[in-house]
Amino acid sequence: MKASAIANLNIALVKYWGKRNKELILPKNSSISVTIEGLFSHTTVEFGEEYKDDIFVLDGKEFKRGSEEYDEYIEKFLNFVRQFSKINFRAKIVSKNNFPPAAGLASSAAGFAALATAINKALNLALSQTELSILARRGSGSATRSIFGGFVEWRKGVKEDGSDSSAVQIVPPDYWPDFRILICLTSKKEKKIKSRAGMEQTVKTSPYYRAWLATVDEDLKKAKKGILEKNFTLVGKTAEENCLKMHATMITTYPPIIYWNEGTIEVIRSVLNWREGGLETYFTIDAGPQVKILCKELDVSEVKKRLKNIKTLENTILARPGRGARITKRHLF
Amino acid sequence: MKASAIANLNIALVKYWGKRNKELILPKNSSISVTIEGLFSHTTVEFGEEYKDDIFVLDGKEFKRGSEEYDEYIEKFLNFVRQFSKINFRAKIVSKNNFPPAAGLASSAAGFAALATAINKALNLALSQTELSILARRGSGSATRSIFGGFVEWRKGVKEDGSDSSAVQIVPPDYWPDFRILICLTSKKEKKIKSRAGMEQTVKTSPYYRAWLATVDEDLKKAKKGILEKNFTLVGKTAEENCLKMHATMITTYPPIIYWNEGTIEVIRSVLNWREGGLETYFTIDAGPQVKILCKELDVSEVKKRLKNIKTLENTILARPGRGARITKRHLF
Repeated sequence: MKASAIANLNIALVKYWGKRNKELILPKNSSISVTIEGLFSHTTVEFGEEYKDDIFVLDGKEFKRGSEEYDEYIEKFLNFVRQFSKINFRAKIVSKNNFPPAAGLASSAAGFAALATAINKALNLALSQTELSILARRGSGSATRSIFGGFVEWRKGVKEDGSDSSAVQIVPPDYWPDFRILICLTSKKEKKIKSRAGMEQTVKTSPYYRAWLATVDEDLKKAKKGILEKNFTLVGKTAEENCLKMHATMITTYPPIIYWNEGTIEVIRSVLNWREGGLETYFTIDAGPQVKILCKELDVSEVKKRLKNIKTLENTILARPGRGARITKRHLF
Repeated sequence: MKASAIANLNIALVKYWGKRNKELILPKNSSISVTIEGLFSHTTVEFGEEYKDDIFVLDGKEFKRGSEEYDEYIEKFLNFVRQFSKINFRAKIVSKNNFPPAAGLASSAAGFAALATAINKALNLALSQTELSILARRGSGSATRSIFGGFVEWRKGVKEDGSDSSAVQIVPPDYWPDFRILICLTSKKEKKIKSRAGMEQTVKTSPYYRAWLATVDEDLKKAKKGILEKNFTLVGKTAEENCLKMHATMITTYPPIIYWNEGTIEVIRSVLNWREGGLETYFTIDAGPQVKILCKELDVSEVKKRLKNIKTLENTILARPGRGARITKRHLF
């Protein structure tokens, strides 16, 4: 009853921000993302009698009962797994990310996609990809999407039990080979506001949240059309506008949720200036200070050159559309 | 037919962003500001036969026909003055600000309040303060408020001709003697997007503009109550929330209007942290990168001390509620 899996993180082009059901992690709106190659969570899980309690080790650090990570994420998820699989063993989970944790790079998305995939194998559940995506959703909303590779839509669904709230692949990773994302790491510090608490506050207090929801369907339509047509301008423009709309609901939350730091602003302003000057780039930002620059492969070297002038940047990572979650034979323990 | 006047700039606590009538400069919503002492425009105007054309000199620089400042601001305003006063002379205007121009410090507010006040004297128009405030409005919306001292409301009015869109004093400057504003100059560079064009784009394109308008009346009520009761918490919280709502409509404008720079973000984040730690401060930001910190007099030295650690700040200016526009005998030419 031991298995390991790898799942890439994904970057949302049309964002998920706000739940309609907190317990089942059902979103207020559908979202679209691109799963990106090479930034992943590698997770090993083992169920067994020998474990008297669940054990969770992330990036070498053990999280114990009493920590939010253990109680709110891992334990809730494992209890749900035990309930629906009727397997009552405790589990040991060891997980490693090859990117800085909790820096707004949606580590929980890759983490729970990998964990769900590993559990499926370890417990012989024989879940389909759609079912896996529903399972991963119970750990973290955005994990729903990381099960699939390429460009992915998480359809919010309408059923109260969440059985239709799962992801589908729009196109596979090799459909659009010159689509690139440059991840700009502006800070390795842990972010202060977790998405889970943040989005709940936004739904409760932002006077703009209703307007956000009212415009998302149009963004989904445009993003999907852009992806299918490989229309970089349409995808980039839609993603950037959608990102700014999400951050506008965040900053109008009470108390204000401001994920941007000095580096974030500098990259945002640079991208806007470059575009005015003819270098077609767009940005998107999730619940953290990191900026992800969308560009075409042929512009990568120019963008990288220009990024060197931005002193508040610590590092950049070049990424392309990547594979979905998959089993690996390499165990972490 | 020569006179000079001085008018302080004002800082909006409930913002003005968007016109219902572009020609008459009638706002979509009422706004509230505090006129602040010591940052002012000093303006001399002379009408006379000797001027073959209008002349406009601001901070030592002459703006000629063909520039936006001349055509869109000064010339339109003087033509309106000549029309309603039936005085057909051309004029020379010399104006000096004691603060960096066009850096988001609402220089046009102080400038047109001073100009309207000087014209009233030069042409012997005998306008009341309310009429002066309506006249100043024709030059620049926020100038409407700088006619009055202390805390001021610009009532949007309902009439199509704008005759009821003028400012009133809520309380005089000495009503709340320990209210302080620390202006943080994060950049002396001229801002790229003029408010006039910016707000027009926002009204046209921001999906959040309607929600902005829907919440302003509540903010006006809270700010007024807070001012009358000298309730610093209520005024500060209302101003900060209102500012973030305005900037949220700006960033969701297409193309995005992002006035914040690295310094802006650093001050915003600092204020939020200080407040969490018990130092009661709030921020507000107008159409530029400068952050204005609201605080109580007894906290000024502590705030100043902490601001020294912010390296992206170039300068700070301490201000308090100030006088309205007034005639001065000191002519600039």
